[in-house]
Amino acid sequence: MSLILSPIPINNKLMLNPYKPIKWPRRPPSLSAVLAEDARGAGAAFDFKRYMEEKAARVNRALDASVPLREPHLVHESMRYSLLAGGKRVRPILCITACELVGGPEYAAMPSACAVEMVHTMSLMHDDLPCMDNDDIRRGKPANHKVFGEAIAILAGDALLSFAFEHVAAATAGASPDRVVRAISELGRCIGSEGMVGGQVADISSEGLAEVGLEQLEYIHVHKTAALLEAAVVMGAIVGGAGEEAVERLRRFAQRVGLLFQVVDDILDVTKSSEELGKTAGKDVAADKTTYPKLIGLEKSRELAEDLKREAYEQISWFDEDKAAPLIALANYIAYRNN
Amino acid sequence: MSLILSPIPINNKLMLNPYKPIKWPRRPPSLSAVLAEDARGAGAAFDFKRYMEEKAARVNRALDASVPLREPHLVHESMRYSLLAGGKRVRPILCITACELVGGPEYAAMPSACAVEMVHTMSLMHDDLPCMDNDDIRRGKPANHKVFGEAIAILAGDALLSFAFEHVAAATAGASPDRVVRAISELGRCIGSEGMVGGQVADISSEGLAEVGLEQLEYIHVHKTAALLEAAVVMGAIVGGAGEEAVERLRRFAQRVGLLFQVVDDILDVTKSSEELGKTAGKDVAADKTTYPKLIGLEKSRELAEDLKREAYEQISWFDEDKAAPLIALANYIAYRNN
Repeated sequence: MSLILSPIPINNKLMLNPYKPIKWPRRPPSLSAVLAEDARGAGAAFDFKRYMEEKAARVNRALDASVPLREPHLVHESMRYSLLAGGKRVRPILCITACELVGGPEYAAMPSACAVEMVHTMSLMHDDLPCMDNDDIRRGKPANHKVFGEAIAILAGDALLSFAFEHVAAATAGASPDRVVRAISELGRCIGSEGMVGGQVADISSEGLAEVGLEQLEYIHVHKTAALLEAAVVMGAIVGGAGEEAVERLRRFAQRVGLLFQVVDDILDVTKSSEELGKTAGKDVAADKTTYPKLIGLEKSRELAEDLKREAYEQISWFDEDKAAPLIALANYIAYRNN
Repeated sequence: MSLILSPIPINNKLMLNPYKPIKWPRRPPSLSAVLAEDARGAGAAFDFKRYMEEKAARVNRALDASVPLREPHLVHESMRYSLLAGGKRVRPILCITACELVGGPEYAAMPSACAVEMVHTMSLMHDDLPCMDNDDIRRGKPANHKVFGEAIAILAGDALLSFAFEHVAAATAGASPDRVVRAISELGRCIGSEGMVGGQVADISSEGLAEVGLEQLEYIHVHKTAALLEAAVVMGAIVGGAGEEAVERLRRFAQRVGLLFQVVDDILDVTKSSEELGKTAGKDVAADKTTYPKLIGLEKSRELAEDLKREAYEQISWFDEDKAAPLIALANYIAYRNN
């Protein structure tokens, strides 16, 4: 296992030099221009696809090994059914990438990486329940409660949540105990009542409302989506040995990228066809869901996306350009996927 | 805050002297004889009632402070509704008592003590849901989901579970980081898929079965009930600075006491009237639930209870007699409450 990333040549135009003041054109570059440049940069120099595939394969092996089919079989089957159902493993790869950016080895971040994926899986299992979003299908398969029943889906989710913390505590190697304690604190803060769960509650509370304001929409997205990305990145940085400034820059980076993800999601729902998205387009409008385009219009939503991207990059410009390449490519991938 | 327990005079007859081999009568003393002696001992020398009241008051203050009414209000209201609904706080007091037994200060154990109560509360919130036990009343009040709805009850439970771990990580003082990491590992192991949750799943799985064997009944009780008592005692010992042997003796002690609790519960259901119990007697028989008296008869159930009690005492006999008095009084209280 290679512990230190080898220097990767990358399109320099998008990378910010930490020693030069950032100069932007009078207006930020258009979304499509940024996308085109990102695509060129990623294709030409840094093999992002291969990076993701290799990392995802190792994450999948680690997840598989972390929850073996022990007694009682039923709850472990239910946990494994959802945990190993695929997915791009964006959160765990973010965690590992942040760890490597600050000079830490992949193995130090792997338990934290698995933990954020366990929490993500558990949040989907509980979200899909009849009393919540009542979704029968998840990742192209029947939702957990459709296979195992509601009681087991709730309990297996509880077990995954508990095991996420246990796994970081019991399996983290290559980081001092005080860093492990800090990583666990961060995980709890980011996913608890003032983090991810807080966002879910705010989302449920807003459902019956006639009007959801910009502030509330941002609260929901920052907590429901961005907080777990924040946990992934910050935990990776902490167990990787990062100093205070690096941790806080990566935290702000993850918060921007998480919100960017949602703003782009809202834009895609309005601008792309169902065929392009690979899912029903215009779903948000049809469901009368509050979105950024609905609240501030399409043009201003695009400007917001560009602002968030610039702010995310500014945080990363502090790090070594070459080492930051995978994290920036990952951020672009999260924000500008086509579906 | 007194950090070391002052020596407490106590009825010596029940306390085992660690320097003498344990001599038991040919037959273990009868349950009622042990009960009578315990009652005399508790009343005469060690003011157990006052001990419990003082500890419970401090635990309640700590729990109240640990989950303030922050934004979003709804989820914090739901968490506080169940967390502060009363209860004897047996688990947190066990945690603190174990910490003090090994020479640690109460404040070192308080976050762990609060954590086990948060987990206990969360397990009741999820257990009461319609898809689980479907209980509308808990501790004399409407169950959480009857007040806040199922979705919020699930999410507030998730938040309490997550916060339990975060609180141990973020708030434990007076213990080294490696001990905090160990305490978190223990909490996860005791309550996860091979601990408390595993016991709940085994219980649900056994519901439809025509026959539940002794081994399975023990599995359910050891995991569903004893595991959280084990977490409480072991976490307290670890943050209190205990060595390996002390931790393992306290672990076995808690496992025996946890199972004893269930065996006594089953015996009381058969032998006491509803009036004496303060709840419906004969409930288990009416529900055709598998119990110890049903499987092995009343006499053998009583013998099992006495064996478990002796085994629990044997583990504690290794410790200083005076310092162990509160823990033994607490074990008697857990096992031999009348309702």
